[in-house]
Amino acid sequence: MALGMKNPVVFQIVGYQNSGKTTMMKKLIKELAKHNLTVATVKHHGHGGKPAVDGQKDSDEHFKSGAAASLVEGEGLLLLQGEKEDWTLDEKIQLLSFFEPDIILIEGHKRAPYPKGVIIRKEEDMELLGKLENIKTIHCWAPFFVEKKGTKTFDIHSEEGLQWIAAFLKNEVEKGQG
Amino acid sequence: MALGMKNPVVFQIVGYQNSGKTTMMKKLIKELAKHNLTVATVKHHGHGGKPAVDGQKDSDEHFKSGAAASLVEGEGLLLLQGEKEDWTLDEKIQLLSFFEPDIILIEGHKRAPYPKGVIIRKEEDMELLGKLENIKTIHCWAPFFVEKKGTKTFDIHSEEGLQWIAAFLKNEVEKGQG
Repeated sequence: MALGMKNPVVFQIVGYQNSGKTTMMKKLIKELAKHNLTVATVKHHGHGGKPAVDGQKDSDEHFKSGAAASLVEGEGLLLLQGEKEDWTLDEKIQLLSFFEPDIILIEGHKRAPYPKGVIIRKEEDMELLGKLENIKTIHCWAPFFVEKKGTKTFDIHSEEGLQWIAAFLKNEVEKGQG
Repeated sequence: MALGMKNPVVFQIVGYQNSGKTTMMKKLIKELAKHNLTVATVKHHGHGGKPAVDGQKDSDEHFKSGAAASLVEGEGLLLLQGEKEDWTLDEKIQLLSFFEPDIILIEGHKRAPYPKGVIIRKEEDMELLGKLENIKTIHCWAPFFVEKKGTKTFDIHSEEGLQWIAAFLKNEVEKGQG
């Protein structure tokens, strides 16, 4: 195994646009911190185009001169920007594994095979449940009486869903260490 | 070997503060592009403190919520920010190897053992030459008549030094592929 690599537990938060994925990710990161679990995150830039890079002055100069990737680090904070034709989710996960997180949370990438929580904002979103694999939890904005075998359903406004995921992930991390 | 890994050729540009390292890095990146060589770069944030991250709105939200590392990607452009107590140069090189560059150029990190070009701006900078290992080229702002066995000396204002380094690196890349 390469230097600094360990196998983090991976979990996804998926749902249609504007269903509240980023908010749920932020809450979940905080919930996991209560359990002393370190988290790395992946997000697909969903608005079309490329993510903005204006603030990275230090590495921008190299990047703008044509470097395929530029890395700058100071006092432990590392910024990396890079361009490559195709990125697989697994490559992103490998890249983040350098940080040796306990858990990698993925926002979106709903077709990926990892265990996942699905956000259901509108009744018509429920079609998602038939399409996706490895659904562990369903988080509903309204009581649509969703039932799906092997999954837990939660009201997105309560803390219970977050707590359930945190306990599940903590258990997975401990299994991996055992 | 892990997915997407190859062994890039590593070269450093070193010199004291304000000797013109960033400018030389930028010129060298452009020179290497003429030879169709892809480059990734490493820079230490030399002004003290942490590099600025204001522009990365997409991954900032996860990071500010306490993620140890956050990655956002759109149309092939990937931004990663992460925090870790200690970073070795070799870890940074490994991280950049994911981008499969032909060459990794390092700005600074003068104590590292890789082949390097040293910039001599002032006469007193010449003490550097006795301290550093693996010096391939010396780039002088003024004709200090520097001579060092096994190294080439260039006027920093001419293109020759850049051309020599580019040819050297191109040869190293080809050796690695052979």
